Amino acid sequence: MGHPDVRAVPDANESEVDTGEEERMSESAIRELRARLPDGAVLTDPDSTETYRRDEADFCVAGTPLAVVRPESTEQVQHVMRVAAEHDLPVVPQGARSGLSGAADAVDGGLVLSLSRMDRILDIDPVDQVAVVEPGVINSALSKAVAEHGLSYPPDPSSWEMSTLGGNLATNAGGLCCVKYGVTADFVRGLEVVLADGQVLSTGRRSAKGVAGYDLTRLLVGSEGTLGVITKATLGLRPAPEPGLTAAAVFAAAEPALRAVNRIVAEGLQPSMLEFLDGTTVRAIQDYRDMGLPPDAGAMVLAQSDRGGRSADDVAAIGRICAEEGALEVAEAADTAESEMLWQSRRMVNAAIRCLGATLIDDVSVPRSRLVELLDGVRRIAEQHDVLVSCPGHVGDGNMHPTVIFDRADDAAVARAEAAFDAVMRLGLDLGGTITGEHGVGLLKRRWLEHELGPLGTELHRSIKAAFDPRGILNPGKVLA
Amino acid sequence: MGHPDVRAVPDANESEVDTGEEERMSESAIRELRARLPDGAVLTDPDSTETYRRDEADFCVAGTPLAVVRPESTEQVQHVMRVAAEHDLPVVPQGARSGLSGAADAVDGGLVLSLSRMDRILDIDPVDQVAVVEPGVINSALSKAVAEHGLSYPPDPSSWEMSTLGGNLATNAGGLCCVKYGVTADFVRGLEVVLADGQVLSTGRRSAKGVAGYDLTRLLVGSEGTLGVITKATLGLRPAPEPGLTAAAVFAAAEPALRAVNRIVAEGLQPSMLEFLDGTTVRAIQDYRDMGLPPDAGAMVLAQSDRGGRSADDVAAIGRICAEEGALEVAEAADTAESEMLWQSRRMVNAAIRCLGATLIDDVSVPRSRLVELLDGVRRIAEQHDVLVSCPGHVGDGNMHPTVIFDRADDAAVARAEAAFDAVMRLGLDLGGTITGEHGVGLLKRRWLEHELGPLGTELHRSIKAAFDPRGILNPGKVLA
Repeated sequence: MGHPDVRAVPDANESEVDTGEEERMSESAIRELRARLPDGAVLTDPDSTETYRRDEADFCVAGTPLAVVRPESTEQVQHVMRVAAEHDLPVVPQGARSGLSGAADAVDGGLVLSLSRMDRILDIDPVDQVAVVEPGVINSALSKAVAEHGLSYPPDPSSWEMSTLGGNLATNAGGLCCVKYGVTADFVRGLEVVLADGQVLSTGRRSAKGVAGYDLTRLLVGSEGTLGVITKATLGLRPAPEPGLTAAAVFAAAEPALRAVNRIVAEGLQPSMLEFLDGTTVRAIQDYRDMGLPPDAGAMVLAQSDRGGRSADDVAAIGRICAEEGALEVAEAADTAESEMLWQSRRMVNAAIRCLGATLIDDVSVPRSRLVELLDGVRRIAEQHDVLVSCPGHVGDGNMHPTVIFDRADDAAVARAEAAFDAVMRLGLDLGGTITGEHGVGLLKRRWLEHELGPLGTELHRSIKAAFDPRGILNPGKVLA
Repeated sequence: MGHPDVRAVPDANESEVDTGEEERMSESAIRELRARLPDGAVLTDPDSTETYRRDEADFCVAGTPLAVVRPESTEQVQHVMRVAAEHDLPVVPQGARSGLSGAADAVDGGLVLSLSRMDRILDIDPVDQVAVVEPGVINSALSKAVAEHGLSYPPDPSSWEMSTLGGNLATNAGGLCCVKYGVTADFVRGLEVVLADGQVLSTGRRSAKGVAGYDLTRLLVGSEGTLGVITKATLGLRPAPEPGLTAAAVFAAAEPALRAVNRIVAEGLQPSMLEFLDGTTVRAIQDYRDMGLPPDAGAMVLAQSDRGGRSADDVAAIGRICAEEGALEVAEAADTAESEMLWQSRRMVNAAIRCLGATLIDDVSVPRSRLVELLDGVRRIAEQHDVLVSCPGHVGDGNMHPTVIFDRADDAAVARAEAAFDAVMRLGLDLGGTITGEHGVGLLKRRWLEHELGPLGTELHRSIKAAFDPRGILNPGKVLA
């Protein structure tokens, strides 16, 4: 199950033609690509293509692409797919490369299809409350544009200031506020998709509701570029939320913090964010910068309410619940500025953890009732494998990010880290959860997917993949091993 | 496109064996079914099976089944599917037969697979906020059961007191409050499904989030029994909403009413219900029972807010918007009892319309910005085809139910009604909408589905159908023509 095992080139694409023949075919493919694409759209020199080889999943082995293509329109994407189909070239659709599972990593000898130049917001309609976008639009750019109309696009992955909506769609990205508002898929009404053979498929609709036929939109969202290339999306919007107010509480241990979390949810407070940091994470933050966090902190909970006039009551109720469950300290923000201050610790998590070493970030999601067992299990795994594991997470959704921290220069430590990473996924499944709540499968977890889906589910996945992409040229080797 | 054209037996299932041979095969299938099912689970006498032949879609031609089977467990459903597969018998999964598209209508010589005896609520978990149910549970039974835990299951089709959750899942049912809370699919976390060959597939998970692999759960929801038989579902729940307050307004015409609707949404009031009745519907209600509705009413809007302490402010704001847009009368409820009174007119819609004649209920959903054009177009279609069309609808979602009213005894009137019904679907598509917002395709609209999906989308539908059900025994002839 170790990561060095992850192959850059899937077996199915290993070529049997000799090298000279291969080169001539490649040259002809490049010529055909350039014939109908703008100048500068096809990059082949290694200095340029190197930049596009991999996403943020350090431990996946990325391939070396034949070329990077950067089309500017649906028609150009169709051209790329037609040339790729003709030459049997693997194609890896790619956004901002901020993904955490290797799904956007290049495949040896294939094309990287970067959608970053298709970055237009085509429509924002305040009456229908929809936006129509190209896939290269940065998440934060859409958020800012719709805010001018008093609207919001809620999905907010941590990468929202750099990740593209196409990437968000491909991975069905989550984020902090999906505990109240839902994930990317919940906001997608329709898609335009270029299929493996270059045909254009339209799915869904602009209207709020619709049940005509199978839900191909939802099937494509989260398929990580293995079924088609998203070239346009119609996204639902919401009225802009009211400014949030935040409560934060520090506990001596995880258990009382998780009891407080379950009560916050059970009492119907509907927090717009509900986050958890375990003791290791709190200490990492305090070591990174003095935030005044107590040295004996075993857990921290942050909760935000954005119910306007009711937010202050909500914050007081959250504070009361945390105190009743034995919090060491409780802070209730009186205004937006104070709320912002309370979130500073949460925002430092990634930077603080990275100061401690190399990281393998897991992404299990379990039923909330099993969170105590998850935290206990993660602690046990850390001990067994002699590694440090921090455990922050979107606790309201049960979506935790146990993060194995280790010394990359030490081969034995790397092996222990990888074993711990795998053990966390096993634990997530054993607790009735999933190996990935929001990051996706990509290369990183493809050997684990079958454990979650079972043989029958896996077989159906392969049949669906074959229905969309019979020659297997779209992002081969990703998701399905 | 006329409905008499709808065939009860799809071509693919026409048998070439002689009648004697057919009868022997049928008898053997019945024997095998009975061998592993409880007494009374297999009905074959015509008096009993007649009851199960059709759902509420009057104008579809239902077949005559070989037998009705009523299994009580997943294992028994597996047995039914294995026998059906072996004998190549069509199988129609069926809930409460309250559907409006003929999706649950029997197929000649096939099995009706009634899930009504699988009606146990297996789990209600207030911490995870999920319920696990069998498909035969009535929607209202779940609603009542979860209310005891301070929770709600929002999807509320008008049939909620009789329809089963299995049927709701198969059609991805909507309802009044989905304008705020979403449709059935938005509450499904995972499914247990018996496939055409009798194997059991588990999809999804109990946790709130998860992105491992393709979204088979969402693919199965709304597939109208053509891909598998749902035998268990894990459904998300919400905190019970606070009691709602209602505003109602009568307008001289549809246009100002629709302007008010768009402002109610645009100003972020988030109504938990937002309904529209056109002039024909208002007159039908007033003729049915004197509700004090003005004779010159051209439209009526009803809106409810369930934001607790803010509901009164919301109702006042809605009333103000309606008055500003020129409402003839505005009523703002001060409490729940007054709100209930305002909803009485809405509740009478079906009964009132049915007093006027036979009905063909359409179900188009269009972007809200196109609603004025939809209402205009429906008026024009009524004139052109010389029929009466009432037009109530879930206006907040753009999901309208133009209902053609006609004299069933008059063949010419029936033909005109069917032409008008088809013209409404064409109009819905022309306005960027869908032929069905919540009722489904079934038999009633299967000849229209390709107009919405296009040839490529239709081809993909067929490939997916073949991946799940290669022999085509699950609900053949439904959804896909």
